Amino acid sequence: MEKVIFDTDPGVDDAMALLFLHRHPGIDLIGITTVFGNASVETTTRNALFLTERWGIDAPVAKGAASPFNPERTQHAFPTFIHGESGLGGIDIPQAVAREADPRPAHRFIIDTVKANPGEVTLIAVAPLANLALALQEAPEIAGLVKRVILMGGAFAMPGNASLAAEANIHNDPEAADLVFTASWPVTAIGLDVTTKTVMTRGKLAEIAEEGGEALHLLNDLSQFYMDFYRHRVGDGMVVHDSCACVYAVAPELFETMSGAVRVLTDGIAEGKTVLKPDGMRFGPSAWDGHPSQTICTHINAPAVLELIRTTLLGQV
Amino acid sequence: MEKVIFDTDPGVDDAMALLFLHRHPGIDLIGITTVFGNASVETTTRNALFLTERWGIDAPVAKGAASPFNPERTQHAFPTFIHGESGLGGIDIPQAVAREADPRPAHRFIIDTVKANPGEVTLIAVAPLANLALALQEAPEIAGLVKRVILMGGAFAMPGNASLAAEANIHNDPEAADLVFTASWPVTAIGLDVTTKTVMTRGKLAEIAEEGGEALHLLNDLSQFYMDFYRHRVGDGMVVHDSCACVYAVAPELFETMSGAVRVLTDGIAEGKTVLKPDGMRFGPSAWDGHPSQTICTHINAPAVLELIRTTLLGQV
Repeated sequence: MEKVIFDTDPGVDDAMALLFLHRHPGIDLIGITTVFGNASVETTTRNALFLTERWGIDAPVAKGAASPFNPERTQHAFPTFIHGESGLGGIDIPQAVAREADPRPAHRFIIDTVKANPGEVTLIAVAPLANLALALQEAPEIAGLVKRVILMGGAFAMPGNASLAAEANIHNDPEAADLVFTASWPVTAIGLDVTTKTVMTRGKLAEIAEEGGEALHLLNDLSQFYMDFYRHRVGDGMVVHDSCACVYAVAPELFETMSGAVRVLTDGIAEGKTVLKPDGMRFGPSAWDGHPSQTICTHINAPAVLELIRTTLLGQV
Repeated sequence: MEKVIFDTDPGVDDAMALLFLHRHPGIDLIGITTVFGNASVETTTRNALFLTERWGIDAPVAKGAASPFNPERTQHAFPTFIHGESGLGGIDIPQAVAREADPRPAHRFIIDTVKANPGEVTLIAVAPLANLALALQEAPEIAGLVKRVILMGGAFAMPGNASLAAEANIHNDPEAADLVFTASWPVTAIGLDVTTKTVMTRGKLAEIAEEGGEALHLLNDLSQFYMDFYRHRVGDGMVVHDSCACVYAVAPELFETMSGAVRVLTDGIAEGKTVLKPDGMRFGPSAWDGHPSQTICTHINAPAVLELIRTTLLGQV
């Protein structure tokens, strides 16, 4: 069982990823940290508490950053046209949820949990990376104590989705992302290069809901608005960005990767763009020098990933 | 016969491209303009005069920009480790050449020639783009009078060669390149995505020289230093970057392309990076809006390109 802290901004595809982590037998979900991104941190925290309550997930939820790591950075508008005003599509969510958040801020929860489990915690981050950056800033030594970081973010050999050049999680907090990529912990980035290949059709999700009962009906219901958004982009269905990062944690053989130093552009018309220096490429001096080699995903076995998501959500793994 | 002005910084691969243009029966080489890049503009002009004299090329040579279009930009060191101190590898070149340059600066030569041949001139640019930018600045109306621009430059879905993010011609003059890509003339960029696939082996070039006599022996001799540089990069042989742009002019069917607005990053660690917004991609507002759709090459039939170069150099086309 792999101990996982899930850093998230639910968010529709975050919801599926959360249920995947809860139901996969190889994952021990020991904490959930929230951050601004798909909606305000108030909303994403409420959503995390709501979903964990409805799905019987015991892991504590710690509320994180409300704004980017660099206080001078202007925050972008929340993408209500993708995730709805509620962050979970068009479903009804009670304003107040019985479950309460952990009293600690998310970055402090991460620091405490990592120190209590040295070398054992995988951080799966599928949102802007402010919580991880704040944790590194306050306790740089955790870089050596985290087992690995798996993040959904970046666009390496293709255009972005939040700007022409940048993927949304990185675009929302470029300075945080640059700090995470250049810290001395092993990072694997699951970017648009692979997530956009991974489309769950509307019919398939409906079938899973039919077979899976109430928990899956909720997932199907909250995903409808998001699939409406994707109709003009991928046809019938939804891109399951965040679940791809969770699948990588348990089935890395379904991905092809490259390695090298990664930097994030923090200004200009391409701010938020992720740029890899492939290992073995000779260049210098450059801004990539002296930073650790990280891993990025270049190809994905999308049918196998979608099937693993299906069977995991249904508790058949 | 297509009227071509060749904007160049010879430069070893420029030399091959120059001879290709001279010897291809579909090309009417009506002018050569020089610029800094592989060496100083004094050196590249001397080299252009030397090569045209040795190869019996009558087209006038006009000397162009000595430094980047943006006067505030710091000029990079010349890559003597690639093209040699002389710009043409290790061969002996007389300091003074009998042929003389056109009295006009390159950008004025371009303006005059384009206006004298409205709609008929193809600009093939295989160097930093200061001359084209200066021509656009002085006479913006030429954008509507040039038939098309074909340039060797850019790195779209792969790393650069002058920096991690940028190809050398664009990196040497990002502001000029951005102006060229956003002007209202049709531009096709032949970037590293395709040129690096196109390697002429040392043995093949020696064969061509053996078969082709004095002119080709000169080309082979001046290419040896450059092939030494490439030994650790592509193995046996040389990347024929600039010739690829010339081949595109006469055999576009050997390339696959994409289209969209192209911008060049002009600051930060990725300055000189070329970023495409593919046509049909919905995004906005963005810095790509309102700029013309240009063409970039994504794939190349490298064996066919190399064979066309061989037969053209040998006068067999």
